[in-house]
Amino acid sequence: MKLYEKLADEIGEAIRRGVFAVGERIPSVRQSSQQHGVSIKTVLHAYALLEGRGIIETRPQSGYFVRELAAPQTMRSPAPAPSPPSEVDVSRLVLSTLRSIRAHDAIPLGSPYPDPSLFPWRRINQYANAIARRHSSWNLMDDLPPGNPELIRQIARRYAENGVPVDPQEIVITLGATEAINLSLQAVAKPGDTVVVESPTFYAMLHAIERMGMRALAVATHPTEGIDIDVLADLLGKQKVAACMVMPNFQNPLGFQMPDEKKQRLVELLTLHDIPVIENDVYQELYFGEARPTTLKNYDTKGLVLHCASFSKSLTASYRIGWAMPGRYRAQVEKLKFLNTLTTPSVPQVAVADYLRQDGYDRHLRHVRKFYRHQARLMSAMVQRFFPAGTRVSAPQGGYVLWVEMPPDVDSMRLYRAALARGITVGPGYMFSTRNDFRHFIRLNYSYPWTAQTEAALKTLGELVAEMT
Amino acid sequence: MKLYEKLADEIGEAIRRGVFAVGERIPSVRQSSQQHGVSIKTVLHAYALLEGRGIIETRPQSGYFVRELAAPQTMRSPAPAPSPPSEVDVSRLVLSTLRSIRAHDAIPLGSPYPDPSLFPWRRINQYANAIARRHSSWNLMDDLPPGNPELIRQIARRYAENGVPVDPQEIVITLGATEAINLSLQAVAKPGDTVVVESPTFYAMLHAIERMGMRALAVATHPTEGIDIDVLADLLGKQKVAACMVMPNFQNPLGFQMPDEKKQRLVELLTLHDIPVIENDVYQELYFGEARPTTLKNYDTKGLVLHCASFSKSLTASYRIGWAMPGRYRAQVEKLKFLNTLTTPSVPQVAVADYLRQDGYDRHLRHVRKFYRHQARLMSAMVQRFFPAGTRVSAPQGGYVLWVEMPPDVDSMRLYRAALARGITVGPGYMFSTRNDFRHFIRLNYSYPWTAQTEAALKTLGELVAEMT
Repeated sequence: MKLYEKLADEIGEAIRRGVFAVGERIPSVRQSSQQHGVSIKTVLHAYALLEGRGIIETRPQSGYFVRELAAPQTMRSPAPAPSPPSEVDVSRLVLSTLRSIRAHDAIPLGSPYPDPSLFPWRRINQYANAIARRHSSWNLMDDLPPGNPELIRQIARRYAENGVPVDPQEIVITLGATEAINLSLQAVAKPGDTVVVESPTFYAMLHAIERMGMRALAVATHPTEGIDIDVLADLLGKQKVAACMVMPNFQNPLGFQMPDEKKQRLVELLTLHDIPVIENDVYQELYFGEARPTTLKNYDTKGLVLHCASFSKSLTASYRIGWAMPGRYRAQVEKLKFLNTLTTPSVPQVAVADYLRQDGYDRHLRHVRKFYRHQARLMSAMVQRFFPAGTRVSAPQGGYVLWVEMPPDVDSMRLYRAALARGITVGPGYMFSTRNDFRHFIRLNYSYPWTAQTEAALKTLGELVAEMT
Repeated sequence: MKLYEKLADEIGEAIRRGVFAVGERIPSVRQSSQQHGVSIKTVLHAYALLEGRGIIETRPQSGYFVRELAAPQTMRSPAPAPSPPSEVDVSRLVLSTLRSIRAHDAIPLGSPYPDPSLFPWRRINQYANAIARRHSSWNLMDDLPPGNPELIRQIARRYAENGVPVDPQEIVITLGATEAINLSLQAVAKPGDTVVVESPTFYAMLHAIERMGMRALAVATHPTEGIDIDVLADLLGKQKVAACMVMPNFQNPLGFQMPDEKKQRLVELLTLHDIPVIENDVYQELYFGEARPTTLKNYDTKGLVLHCASFSKSLTASYRIGWAMPGRYRAQVEKLKFLNTLTTPSVPQVAVADYLRQDGYDRHLRHVRKFYRHQARLMSAMVQRFFPAGTRVSAPQGGYVLWVEMPPDVDSMRLYRAALARGITVGPGYMFSTRNDFRHFIRLNYSYPWTAQTEAALKTLGELVAEMT
């Protein structure tokens, strides 16, 4: 990061924290130069950057002032029209989208993955390398399901420290949350069964349904509070449902944190109907609030919550370490893990365990949370600034994606293709439902540091959207 | 390895190669001491070891002679009684067996995995560590299915060098052969379908069937030539079969190499009925003959062979790198890979690719093949020596397991438990069929270097078997 960028971020952060209020004058260029011990040129550069970001503005003869940010227009996700459960076939679209993102990764706004440069890659690799040097060989049988005992202990310890009571015996290590979700769903439902999902829903959930030839039934989902429990209650009275799949914390793409009382009500409702619920909690560590949010597991009295998570969003994606805590379905999930992939590679398991025990995971997470919180605000403001009127954005409370509702005329696949031709990727709304409920929505990734290039890309996107309305 | 063990192995190998023929006198203790530049005591020790192994014998006043080894009694696998396809539920037994092997691994005769100390673990880890140092981060998207391009190229190159024409575009990298087999089966059959397997069959095949709730139909399998094609032809005329799963090279547990003309006939028969065949070829590199055997792929004209393999038996088990070449089902397998586990971890993929390109895989393999060939002979001779009359053994042509048929009264689960109580494990025959077709059979692993402890374990097993007859 260049010096002026660092300075811009520092001042931006001070504004965010309220050190300088909206409308207030910030220190002059000369003052800042003295305070921070940098050249006048660097300060000018930093201020230009902040101005470009819409955070400050110049008033002639007066100096630089904190700008009034238009409050982002928050959205209301459309309630899905009542419809029969549908077959799922979104994976082809998702895979081809991911491939084109890889091929055009200059501005990966469409990527579902966090910026890999934020991971403490070198630290974790040092543990992996030390393990490789320490052992003359590795017996495949040492880490048969449920997985490496020390890793399991470290995961359980973190939950306990965050107020989630966990029996280490319940944890099964998997190949990322992907496998945890797949095995959990397979443990509770069979091909042809109906599974309730959110609307919009994270396509990884749809993939799990597609993989087993099940059927998805979308339930209206509030953009800041999660799945509509009244609608769900009504539906469960009328229809046979095998399982429910939700993401109560920082749902992808909406970013909401379901309030505690709603989490409790959801678990109670499902318990009443004896319906298992698969909780995808991969963003659990990426909260913007004061503390790690609760999980459905906190309210589970009957072992009906199959909690799935991973380190892929918060620590290392390439190691592919995830886990399931499948409640009363633990034996089935462990058996399915054995059948599906035999074991999860050992060295990554032990390296992550060593990192968790000996290194600075919490320090790393504090840094990442602060950064994402800042970036969320920046991306919202930029979309508001560059996209045409009628655009609304989500209000993420964690994670690193923003959900953008564009004017109804805009077809997100057309936008996707037009943007791709300019080297920019977006996540088309089509990926987030089994029908075309989110035709005029896109998902944007804000995990990458903000650059002039990002800003230009947002501007280009805004122009493309304007042309389509 | 101690000096006398090394000497014993050298002389044993010379005998195996025919330098000293059966009944011939080997050099006296004094001669050997001079020739090899070791002490008289070391030679005496080595000769005692060879005598204990049943390779030489002392004749009073005459010296040491190459012993006539009783030709191992070869076996005839029982043809399964005609029966309807059956549901599969062997994974619980297999997992609990593997767990107890891990807990009692002093003499892991029951292990399905090769001795990990034979793998070039340090070399491969050096590549992994170099990759970890070279890259500041790793983008998960870089190795989306089908997998790392360089690894795919290296795998294709090895096939081409061995006369198997392979289009690199056909290869999909998986998490071990386990995932390759699972995805291949899922691509061609659905829950409830009937799948033909060998008898005995490697339980990993049964696991794939169990995972998807399909049904297994066992077909008589000749202990040295593989599945009975006449029986299969007859069956296909009468019964609807969705797929066939076989292991033509060094089948686990029988160890046969199906003759080329039978491979060709099998593919032709299945092509006639348009039935896909999943070929598990994980032992392809561990042949005892002069060259790598052909595969079903060599005879496939219609893309009906889904060939699955891995590096777990020949290079590194803990990296979990496998692949599928799914013929005309490639697109489905690639999609299922994406749905099942998203990606295979990147660093292991690249490390194996680097090793294959730059290191001594062929040299390593030559060493391992020679060692296993020797060990197979040793283990057969020891079983023959210590087990009661009526015991028969397989004649492995590759791989590292021996299949042992004991007198009909012996229950392999009883033997398994009695042996476990003495710190010895065996693979009970129950694991190799969906019914109890192999009640009096066990599988023994001969990949571990032969020690006095191994010999004592074989002796104990023989005594336990004798008690049960």
